[in-house]
Amino acid sequence: MSAIPSPSTRQAARAVAIADRGAKDGVLLAIARQLEAGQAELLEANAQDLAALPKDASTAFRDRLRLDAARVRHMAESLCQVAELPDPVGEELDRRQLVSGVLARRVRSPLGVILMIFESRPNVAIEAFSLGFKAGNAMILRGGKESARTVAVLYAWVQAALRAGGFPPEVLQGITDPDRALVLKLLQLKEEIDVVVPRGGDSLIEFVVANSKIPVIKNDRGLCHVYVDEDADLEMAARIVENAKCQRPGVCNSMETLLVHAKVAEKLLPALHERLTPHFVEWWCDPKALQALGDRPRLFAAKPESWDTEYLDFKLNCRVVQSFEEALAHIALHGSRHSEAIITKSEPRARRFQGEVDAAAVYWNASTRFTDGFELGLGGELGISTQKLHVRGPVGLRELTSVRWLMDGTGQVRE
Amino acid sequence: MSAIPSPSTRQAARAVAIADRGAKDGVLLAIARQLEAGQAELLEANAQDLAALPKDASTAFRDRLRLDAARVRHMAESLCQVAELPDPVGEELDRRQLVSGVLARRVRSPLGVILMIFESRPNVAIEAFSLGFKAGNAMILRGGKESARTVAVLYAWVQAALRAGGFPPEVLQGITDPDRALVLKLLQLKEEIDVVVPRGGDSLIEFVVANSKIPVIKNDRGLCHVYVDEDADLEMAARIVENAKCQRPGVCNSMETLLVHAKVAEKLLPALHERLTPHFVEWWCDPKALQALGDRPRLFAAKPESWDTEYLDFKLNCRVVQSFEEALAHIALHGSRHSEAIITKSEPRARRFQGEVDAAAVYWNASTRFTDGFELGLGGELGISTQKLHVRGPVGLRELTSVRWLMDGTGQVRE
Repeated sequence: MSAIPSPSTRQAARAVAIADRGAKDGVLLAIARQLEAGQAELLEANAQDLAALPKDASTAFRDRLRLDAARVRHMAESLCQVAELPDPVGEELDRRQLVSGVLARRVRSPLGVILMIFESRPNVAIEAFSLGFKAGNAMILRGGKESARTVAVLYAWVQAALRAGGFPPEVLQGITDPDRALVLKLLQLKEEIDVVVPRGGDSLIEFVVANSKIPVIKNDRGLCHVYVDEDADLEMAARIVENAKCQRPGVCNSMETLLVHAKVAEKLLPALHERLTPHFVEWWCDPKALQALGDRPRLFAAKPESWDTEYLDFKLNCRVVQSFEEALAHIALHGSRHSEAIITKSEPRARRFQGEVDAAAVYWNASTRFTDGFELGLGGELGISTQKLHVRGPVGLRELTSVRWLMDGTGQVRE
Repeated sequence: MSAIPSPSTRQAARAVAIADRGAKDGVLLAIARQLEAGQAELLEANAQDLAALPKDASTAFRDRLRLDAARVRHMAESLCQVAELPDPVGEELDRRQLVSGVLARRVRSPLGVILMIFESRPNVAIEAFSLGFKAGNAMILRGGKESARTVAVLYAWVQAALRAGGFPPEVLQGITDPDRALVLKLLQLKEEIDVVVPRGGDSLIEFVVANSKIPVIKNDRGLCHVYVDEDADLEMAARIVENAKCQRPGVCNSMETLLVHAKVAEKLLPALHERLTPHFVEWWCDPKALQALGDRPRLFAAKPESWDTEYLDFKLNCRVVQSFEEALAHIALHGSRHSEAIITKSEPRARRFQGEVDAAAVYWNASTRFTDGFELGLGGELGISTQKLHVRGPVGLRELTSVRWLMDGTGQVRE
């Protein structure tokens, strides 16, 4: 394998940075067409990756790695969607005529070279490339080693589309070398790489944050709460809690902890328990919630660490609070700053909740599951950030850009 | 001294986060009034700080530490200016009605708790507090130890104004303890502090970046170029180069290297040398520039390291280039991504320069000295960032905020 990043990565990044929208969209659509035309070859490579998995690989792992006709079609569709999005590069964010007469414009500009490290999930390679490239960047991709054969096919197609579109193929550098030492080496290259985006389990994220000399946009865990206020519509509350917990429990925007105001606990909790019965949800409860739930199956006494546990499973924590303020304090202490919801008919209380809860997304009367780049119309996402700097929430197209000030004068000097 | 940050810093930050504009501006104006009323006391403390300086302290160091009536008035005026700026907190940046009917709004929100570490320059304490506080944050300030008596007076006034305005005094925590080990300890507190802003010499910045577990907004060095194109108005070019080099050479947006197209070198350089004679500027030149300059004083042959040296003094590098492309390549190799300028009558070439040069500010026919939060109307700045993430260019009011998505529903769940 040649050097990664190639010495010409910077040059490749400059070529994308100044490319016009049509040239970039042309490449994305060419890849989409190739996905349809080459489907058999891609599924064959994927079948080999799946066959090579150790027998004890989890169902979830296997499922993330597997492609089928529907998933390939979805990848092609997402490429077409990104092609349809406006080009963020050059977008004017601010325009000021200075006292001296200099015209100052703040415009979106590419980040440069982005390194994305992700799990054995081939569709992420295409999502990451399409968003990063459309935002004017060169991409270095390093997926999980179990997906090596599948992503090698995808990388070859992307590079062919780049060449056909007049771009240097170094705009995408795919790493299939399984050696983790290589990743460590890449994370030192702060002159060659502008940003690193890790996506995967906690241990990967921690490894990257601890070892990277390059600025990181990271995708964090989500420990999300739904607070059912004394003024809630209880039928709505039950519907939202069911959705936030059970629609897809393995993702970061699902609910882990339910907080219920004491005034409605007796009424809400038994009905909700019944509603969640088909999902066999485990309840980890404080004493008051246990009391309200009475003699029902799958009830457990919450331990101190329960309130900080991200289950990603059909399990929830439940606590009865005496006041709105107690709910706020619980969320401030245990929330992961991802997505938090209040269910209430009181608009003043909803606005106070939205004003005081420090999280990427704060909901009033809706499921936390909407924290998602597709749902928000951002053209997909590379993940969801709970950082406060640069990007908070879904990492979409605009979040893969920086800004520059372009200053036009007629000879002005500073007095 | 009590614990820094105080256990109630988070609570103090929440109080600022939800404060309305009037309450915040009231505090800023009260500090401005106190600066006028208490001037004698402040200047007395400053005189003590100055008297305690070691005899060999540089003139520049002494000058940064010194306050006088005009500087105090300027501090008061800058407080009034920040009070007049619109409140960034709550500003709506995006609004989308999702397919489900959920209304998603992306609004500016405070960062939380900001730690600012700065040199012995008392006015920076007031600038940092005013911008950070107006942006809804609690501030921990740690200035250079030589300014301890001066900033202690300022901190006391700020806290009195906070109390009078109904804020907890922990909204500002001023550290006058000179122990650097304390800074190292603070840099580990990633749960208690959201962002650290170092401002000062290279060694301070490097220390913070190397040791901080907290995200950093850093203020970098500037190695800025002016490129005089073959199509330049040479009188304009000379005026701009003189300003960019000589108006205030000790700051990061001043010019260090002059690039001149070969076609105009013979005409521009001798005239420019004469123009800079009153400033006794040293010229470090490549052979072609030396040839064009002939037998003149203060000419030196540039060494390889000259092109990477930030003089911050009446010294410049000068290189004659054969083409526009050679100038671009030189800037890509030696620029610090801060401020770069082209002087030309050719708009297409100016636009290519602005498109390809990767820097926080890219100028056409104006001095690099305009890269400044006041000049840009941002209400001052905490410094100038050459990072690509979060903020690039002057760090003003908006750059001291994050964003949140506020989501209003009527019971929506995700299908």
